[in-house]
Amino acid sequence: MKKITTLLLLNSCLIFAQSSDELQLKEIYKQALTNSKCYSWLDYLSNKIGQRLSGSDNAGKAVLYTKSELETLGLDRVYLQEVMVPKWVRGEKETAYIQNGKNKTNIPVCALGGSVATPKNGILAEVIEVHSLKELETLGTEKIKGKIVFFNRPMEAGLLNTFEAYGGAVDQRGAGAREASKYGAVGAIVRSMNLRLDDYPHTGWMGYKDIPKTQYIPGAAISTNGAELLSKSLKENPKLKFFLKQSCMQYDDVLSYNVVGEIKGSEHPEKIIVVGGHLDSWDLADGSHDDGAGVVQSMEVVRMIKNMGYKPKNTIRVVLFMNEENGGRGGDKYNELAQTNNENHIFALESDCGGFTPRGFSFECDDANLAKAQTWKALFEPYMTASFTKGHGGSDIEPLQSKKIVKAGLKPDSQRYFDYHHAATDKFDAVDKRELELGAATMASLIYLFDQYGIVE
Amino acid sequence: MKKITTLLLLNSCLIFAQSSDELQLKEIYKQALTNSKCYSWLDYLSNKIGQRLSGSDNAGKAVLYTKSELETLGLDRVYLQEVMVPKWVRGEKETAYIQNGKNKTNIPVCALGGSVATPKNGILAEVIEVHSLKELETLGTEKIKGKIVFFNRPMEAGLLNTFEAYGGAVDQRGAGAREASKYGAVGAIVRSMNLRLDDYPHTGWMGYKDIPKTQYIPGAAISTNGAELLSKSLKENPKLKFFLKQSCMQYDDVLSYNVVGEIKGSEHPEKIIVVGGHLDSWDLADGSHDDGAGVVQSMEVVRMIKNMGYKPKNTIRVVLFMNEENGGRGGDKYNELAQTNNENHIFALESDCGGFTPRGFSFECDDANLAKAQTWKALFEPYMTASFTKGHGGSDIEPLQSKKIVKAGLKPDSQRYFDYHHAATDKFDAVDKRELELGAATMASLIYLFDQYGIVE
Repeated sequence: MKKITTLLLLNSCLIFAQSSDELQLKEIYKQALTNSKCYSWLDYLSNKIGQRLSGSDNAGKAVLYTKSELETLGLDRVYLQEVMVPKWVRGEKETAYIQNGKNKTNIPVCALGGSVATPKNGILAEVIEVHSLKELETLGTEKIKGKIVFFNRPMEAGLLNTFEAYGGAVDQRGAGAREASKYGAVGAIVRSMNLRLDDYPHTGWMGYKDIPKTQYIPGAAISTNGAELLSKSLKENPKLKFFLKQSCMQYDDVLSYNVVGEIKGSEHPEKIIVVGGHLDSWDLADGSHDDGAGVVQSMEVVRMIKNMGYKPKNTIRVVLFMNEENGGRGGDKYNELAQTNNENHIFALESDCGGFTPRGFSFECDDANLAKAQTWKALFEPYMTASFTKGHGGSDIEPLQSKKIVKAGLKPDSQRYFDYHHAATDKFDAVDKRELELGAATMASLIYLFDQYGIVE
Repeated sequence: MKKITTLLLLNSCLIFAQSSDELQLKEIYKQALTNSKCYSWLDYLSNKIGQRLSGSDNAGKAVLYTKSELETLGLDRVYLQEVMVPKWVRGEKETAYIQNGKNKTNIPVCALGGSVATPKNGILAEVIEVHSLKELETLGTEKIKGKIVFFNRPMEAGLLNTFEAYGGAVDQRGAGAREASKYGAVGAIVRSMNLRLDDYPHTGWMGYKDIPKTQYIPGAAISTNGAELLSKSLKENPKLKFFLKQSCMQYDDVLSYNVVGEIKGSEHPEKIIVVGGHLDSWDLADGSHDDGAGVVQSMEVVRMIKNMGYKPKNTIRVVLFMNEENGGRGGDKYNELAQTNNENHIFALESDCGGFTPRGFSFECDDANLAKAQTWKALFEPYMTASFTKGHGGSDIEPLQSKKIVKAGLKPDSQRYFDYHHAATDKFDAVDKRELELGAATMASLIYLFDQYGIVE
């Protein structure tokens, strides 16, 4: 009999708990849609500051702006973490054209981040089109030497998840120039990581790793329309030449900052929950989706917590990481300081997939914690954000180590992301206010649940 | 023993069936994302034809264009259905301003569809702000007579589903002028059905119903920013005046058409499955989302069926309805002819909620058929389109009657819809190619399943 009573009691507690969680999420979503600041913060970041490439003046302005905004929220502590970041500068606008006999056709290109410049007068060379890094091996030095290698494998349009399509094509951008240089190429041009056909080149990181500096060759992205045209022209005339001129420069590292705001936990102040995005962007546009959205959503999470008078049990920390795009130094530094200070992080959530309608989360954790998170799915179903899968948390929280930590990434609808990613199109107008706000609400909801119920340690 | 064998056999058939459906949906989604025509059709409809208000030359061009495109698809029959439609014309661009003492501030407005014009020199009158039709009663003739009634109840931002928010506010647009006229108002201006604050007025249908023609007063939509400003100004000076001038006209009905294309069923040619959207649009923009998207997605469904060599058991009919926006005559006519010809419609699917990422369907049917559809949810889960709810099918298929019919509406993500709906912003660039294509795939998948497994009759 006693057993039954206990069960009944337990059951009614669970019902009560469920119901109060439901109410909490309802309040969070309502607040986000009717009374949030994230959209106006993004307006400022995008339209008053603009592009925020690591080491730039604008990146510095973004540090000061977000710090001062966090200081208005009544958090327990707002501070900066010093971090040395790479400083790469694009220089003059790049020029490129196809020279086909006497005809010159201008082609939209942009230097890839981290690339060296061309010689001052540019390079003019024949082009060899390839579709994979592997293909370089087959062609060998004989066919590549002295030429520009044109990497033209498109992102796979048939995949539903555009990040999967990106993952299947981006090796060309990251390693194309480096690998081509090993066979004597004089430059590398890479089809933009974009599923649309348009005239915008998409930049992004590339690396030379351990090849000698004397072998560095310039790498550039070419718009998808440009890639189509070049490929077609090469079929008609394999001897055509391509001209590329870019004047980018890598400077010495400079001092920058992660921005951190903190609400002390009322029960377990030593247990830390992190929510964040990255403050730096590429330099071709405002970076409103990548990752202005993640920054303002993360700020909104702590704003809502304070605004709703919710007292978290654990310490909640918003972290605006510097230098995700071309170095990841902010994420590394955050982890380094966490280790130095012997901090205990239990949960970290990142938003770095754009400010689109949220669909759910990817969880980077053990099965026990995934199973625990999945018991909360029903709470997210009314908001159509209950896609809970196993997967990557995020680049900035990737280095973070702790005794036991659950990591998660917000997963918005991915269809439009690569229309904007790293291109001149990633502007404020490309972000919808409600979609952005729903992302913030979805993040705040998960933060609330992990704060309430902890992780399986 | 026999029983077990039968069960096993049945089970393995089910597994086989499931697996072949899975493959079919996989193929449909892949085709849609890699090899569809819907986006280029929409490009033509939006950019080469443009707005397609019923009775306009452009609506006529859209009829001819879509008919000729359907004729290229190898369908068994493509034809037009004659339908008389209202012809309402906006006339000159409307003008409006707030006259506050000596200050005049221009305000973006547009006539509501079906409205009468103002007198040639416009109207200038004091304004009374209300938040509901009900409030008119409370105020009565004394406070309303001679004034412009300003309906300013916003769509409720806190609701997740923006169509619900629309449903909660649109009575002001449909009935505001009519009801205000009963209390002697000289005009009605209605806050645009838009969740954003911007400068675009959103038109849409309004009706006078059975009030005498002499009592018709002009109705206009005011942009949300304009509404905010007017409301604020009225608080400061309740005696300010508002000027409105519009010159719209209602002409006699004119001949137009529904466009129909048909693939004859191989097993049950007498059973008809309809898929459609509406060819007409409002006149302020291309109507790319409303409902260019639904038109080209419906065309894409039959194109894919032919292209994949799928032989439907039932007759599949694509119907591009005329005059959904301001009369619904196309839907009525389609039903009228179906009754005359004793046709047996088993399933009708409409896409009229924009070309955004599809989330699932709303089903208008009995519980048995809803339960049947829900057994297919798992097939849609890999595409994140498995939100199957009970609800409205669509305006054009609403009149359609049959012995037993299941109706459904495609339900895309609703967050951005009212940024564009009936406004100058509803243009081709607001539609994402992949989101549009995924909608078409989701529709084709459901059409396939109803064709394969029928309805519960």
